Amino acid sequence: MNVCIFAFKMEMNRMKKELDIITFDADDTLWENELFFRENEHCFCELIKEYADQNQVLESLLKNEIKTLPIYGYGIKGFVLSMIETALELSNNKISGNTIKEILELGKKQLSYPVKLIDGVEDTLSALQKDYTLVMATKGDLTDQERKIEESGLKKYFSHIEIMSEKNESGYRSLIDRLQVSPDKFLMVGNSLKSDIIPVLSIGGYAAHIPFYTTWEHEKVDKPETCDRMFSLKSIRELLSII
Amino acid sequence: MNVCIFAFKMEMNRMKKELDIITFDADDTLWENELFFRENEHCFCELIKEYADQNQVLESLLKNEIKTLPIYGYGIKGFVLSMIETALELSNNKISGNTIKEILELGKKQLSYPVKLIDGVEDTLSALQKDYTLVMATKGDLTDQERKIEESGLKKYFSHIEIMSEKNESGYRSLIDRLQVSPDKFLMVGNSLKSDIIPVLSIGGYAAHIPFYTTWEHEKVDKPETCDRMFSLKSIRELLSII
Repeated sequence: MNVCIFAFKMEMNRMKKELDIITFDADDTLWENELFFRENEHCFCELIKEYADQNQVLESLLKNEIKTLPIYGYGIKGFVLSMIETALELSNNKISGNTIKEILELGKKQLSYPVKLIDGVEDTLSALQKDYTLVMATKGDLTDQERKIEESGLKKYFSHIEIMSEKNESGYRSLIDRLQVSPDKFLMVGNSLKSDIIPVLSIGGYAAHIPFYTTWEHEKVDKPETCDRMFSLKSIRELLSII
Repeated sequence: MNVCIFAFKMEMNRMKKELDIITFDADDTLWENELFFRENEHCFCELIKEYADQNQVLESLLKNEIKTLPIYGYGIKGFVLSMIETALELSNNKISGNTIKEILELGKKQLSYPVKLIDGVEDTLSALQKDYTLVMATKGDLTDQERKIEESGLKKYFSHIEIMSEKNESGYRSLIDRLQVSPDKFLMVGNSLKSDIIPVLSIGGYAAHIPFYTTWEHEKVDKPETCDRMFSLKSIRELLSII
């Protein structure tokens, strides 16, 4: 951490001169998201507790989500389909229609939650917009992300919004090509080391990590080795004091 | 029809000089898609025939799909969730876990169908690519569309690929802004009057309609009034003889 902060301060002068584009992840960076999955996982465990205990349910659910990611992609609809599949598996297909109906309702509720911005987001974007081109790069269900973007009221701060099917090196390479920016003028800000930080560092960009208090198991990875292009922040507001 | 063809021939000289970008819808314009929905609807009717006859099933399914479009968006995952909801409704939640499992399997199968190009597509794209910037604009599940784009082998012909959450006037306005083209230099090619033709004509673009032999009920609309910027084609190959 100390090393990162040091590197960060050293780098700042360089960034100040060179940075063109600051790109923000959305879910759990600009607005709350993951906690709704946690809440629904909890409700789901309650719904099928006669068939398995909480640990078994969460383990089976995660296994099913990861298994179907290549065809379902990220987002709530795939999560709902995986809850249904898990309920069938753990109950040996004995699960009742009423419970399936309740699982569908959990999904619909999650798809309609009001968007709650994370503290400091709007002030920070408003300030940064004066000097930088701001971009949003997120993943998940297209329709759900567009709803959240509209509801958030943040659209006005962004020159470009990209919904990516996978936030990996190749996805970020396409993004910076499209933005016509070189990686060393590109800073990515996000909560996921796996999706927002590591692939951006790998292609030569800058990355600012702002952890959110809950992370999906599948997104958890070890912290990358110290890198002078990576910065660890406690809050989005800290961006303002460093660039 | 005659009027359209006449208009089409008159317009061609103008288009030849002015057209910059030709944008193609993908599902049922470049590759087959809708028939897999028809096939799965048929399988679904069979699966729950003890609860309702085919007409009732299809009517309830369509109603549920349209009702959930604002939150689920287009694509196979929403279709599967709507089949499950319909099965619960028509069976008064008595549907068995085995049947729900089979509905999930129908969805997974549909998400894995090999991509089958429509006759003439590759030759036409290959020829047009020499003189025009080609763009693909489709809608549906992000992950599923990306899979089909990769599998189709057509990516190399397109300068830009856009997956839209809704193909309406506002969606097309964003697209042409992003492409930095004026509407009168933009031609949209697609099978859906509702999604590919009418909104593009409304914003002042050109549109070539190539009907596919099956159309989702929700996409069916009356043919628009004759417009000298709309062309009706029988096959994608006809594009070559007119521009």
